[in-house]
Amino acid sequence: MKIIHVTASKEYDVKIGSGLLSTLGAELAKVSKIGTAAIISDSNVWPLYGEAAVAALESAGYKTVHYIFPAGEAHKSGANYLSILNFLAINHITRSDSIVALGGGVVGDISGFVAATFLRGIAYIQVPTTVLAAVDSSVGGKTAIDLQAGKNLAGAFYQPRLVLCDTDLLSSLPEDIFRDGCSEIIKYSILYDASLFSTLMRDGLDFDRESVIARCVELKRDVVAQDEFDTGQRQKLNLGHTIGHAVEANSNFTLSHGKAVAIGMAIVAGAAAKYGICSCDTQAKILSILAKFELPSATKHTAQELYESALSDKKRLGGSVTLVVPQEIGKCILRPTPIEALKDFIEAGL
Amino acid sequence: MKIIHVTASKEYDVKIGSGLLSTLGAELAKVSKIGTAAIISDSNVWPLYGEAAVAALESAGYKTVHYIFPAGEAHKSGANYLSILNFLAINHITRSDSIVALGGGVVGDISGFVAATFLRGIAYIQVPTTVLAAVDSSVGGKTAIDLQAGKNLAGAFYQPRLVLCDTDLLSSLPEDIFRDGCSEIIKYSILYDASLFSTLMRDGLDFDRESVIARCVELKRDVVAQDEFDTGQRQKLNLGHTIGHAVEANSNFTLSHGKAVAIGMAIVAGAAAKYGICSCDTQAKILSILAKFELPSATKHTAQELYESALSDKKRLGGSVTLVVPQEIGKCILRPTPIEALKDFIEAGL
Repeated sequence: MKIIHVTASKEYDVKIGSGLLSTLGAELAKVSKIGTAAIISDSNVWPLYGEAAVAALESAGYKTVHYIFPAGEAHKSGANYLSILNFLAINHITRSDSIVALGGGVVGDISGFVAATFLRGIAYIQVPTTVLAAVDSSVGGKTAIDLQAGKNLAGAFYQPRLVLCDTDLLSSLPEDIFRDGCSEIIKYSILYDASLFSTLMRDGLDFDRESVIARCVELKRDVVAQDEFDTGQRQKLNLGHTIGHAVEANSNFTLSHGKAVAIGMAIVAGAAAKYGICSCDTQAKILSILAKFELPSATKHTAQELYESALSDKKRLGGSVTLVVPQEIGKCILRPTPIEALKDFIEAGL
Repeated sequence: MKIIHVTASKEYDVKIGSGLLSTLGAELAKVSKIGTAAIISDSNVWPLYGEAAVAALESAGYKTVHYIFPAGEAHKSGANYLSILNFLAINHITRSDSIVALGGGVVGDISGFVAATFLRGIAYIQVPTTVLAAVDSSVGGKTAIDLQAGKNLAGAFYQPRLVLCDTDLLSSLPEDIFRDGCSEIIKYSILYDASLFSTLMRDGLDFDRESVIARCVELKRDVVAQDEFDTGQRQKLNLGHTIGHAVEANSNFTLSHGKAVAIGMAIVAGAAAKYGICSCDTQAKILSILAKFELPSATKHTAQELYESALSDKKRLGGSVTLVVPQEIGKCILRPTPIEALKDFIEAGL
């Protein structure tokens, strides 16, 4: 087991290792009172791990209640948020009780927002069941729901008491969901860690779960410690995302988030090489690692199509976007780009 | 004008005086960027003060948009909360813009929660239009919405950038709403300030708005500074409320909150005198001031009825309630009371 200690506005541990789900009750007892644990999960995860989670909690003396919703981003909604709040109230959950988020990013994001706001804040812990949730959404305290007008538009900064990542759970993932998480791991290596990049290049999909996830959590922890409220360096975590979101939207969301981000990183790398920000060798390395992980690096959409999507996605931010651009493996820069220059940039990268 | 400087997790000013609404734009510009001001108000307040608020904001360079909902506690709901969030998103409100809450407690509470959570937090300022909102809900950072299962069950601790209390606005209040605020002011004097009590006793309903409201804000500010997250001394602000809520519920909410709290204070004073916690003279003073403000001090409901309501209100808190009990004018104590002793306490006070 590896333990990463996070020091944000609240301190907590991210514990990563094989077999940790069975310790859930004992671990929760270290960071909260024995009371009721309200488990929030979805229809994919609950049938696989619900029983084990309940057993672990009850053996440590917790009562449990559970709220299970249909899997999918459509349920990261305001309606589902209010429904969970009412579920907690009806079950007389108090400030001495805890919320356990058992699932991927959607479960973690909505559960965190519920925990941040029910009775103005109660304890919660995250048990991520996807690689993406383990390396990304479980660290940093960003909780959110989607509104009709867009994704993640309401939420709170709220830290969990503990993140418990059982690496055994990740191997049951469908191939697609697993590869989505790999795209995020590759992103960390391009942003911050050439040595992690080499390891991933060597091992491909067989990378060591515990040490690689721990390294990514550590990297994200360090970014969040510098910029918890997302006003500067934390923007780097958007590598591949601005153009990736445009690719995702153009596919009508038939392409998964991770694959879209992979394409976004490839396009940014292409433009960076064309503009002389990175070498052609760096671009080639980025394309190679995506290929190694069987992630896509090309799209059939035109620069014009992607530009228009990116524009609509970002129009709330005014007249420019901040792109994250690689200089070399392990080092990227923030590049504020006027909206009118964005199309050329995408064109250069295609 | 009086200025009370609040030092909670964020610092801000509460400005109180005649004619302040016309300075709204200039004052907002001191604490936020010039951008769009999204005004949230209700159907009672907007027709009276909406135009003046817009004029003041536009003269300082702000664009304005407004969201007006039907007045009343029924609209401090989850559905209205989501509706306001969507309104802000559709109007492209960004983190550089501001929310202006123009109204009483319901407007302030729901607007504060919206501001706390839209884009994970944007600037907001409060323009309270009731005495209750001016002395109570505009200070301390408690924001909330009601759930089907109960009042104020979801929310956040979130501080405004500024509270601007124009005392001219308070005189347009219906008599009932005005007296509700007086009940709260009397509460502060019984809790903390014998000299304020004497002033109120002398002046009755003609008390000086600016200085009395400023004194109450100062008193609340000091409590909140000690106990922002409501784990100790801030509970004293519940004087009259535990039993008051029971009276309110027994009237099927036909009795206003302030009148119910007045009755709650009278019952607690009666029990305190019977139990020897305060003198009969203190009890008599409390009854006199309620009479002076034409607030009720008796209820037709039995101890059994009130006890059962109080029980259902508090059952989420376990086996005891903490009552706030006067020792003398200006000094109250917290008295943890087992549920089974509560009925006798109410009986003694009737």
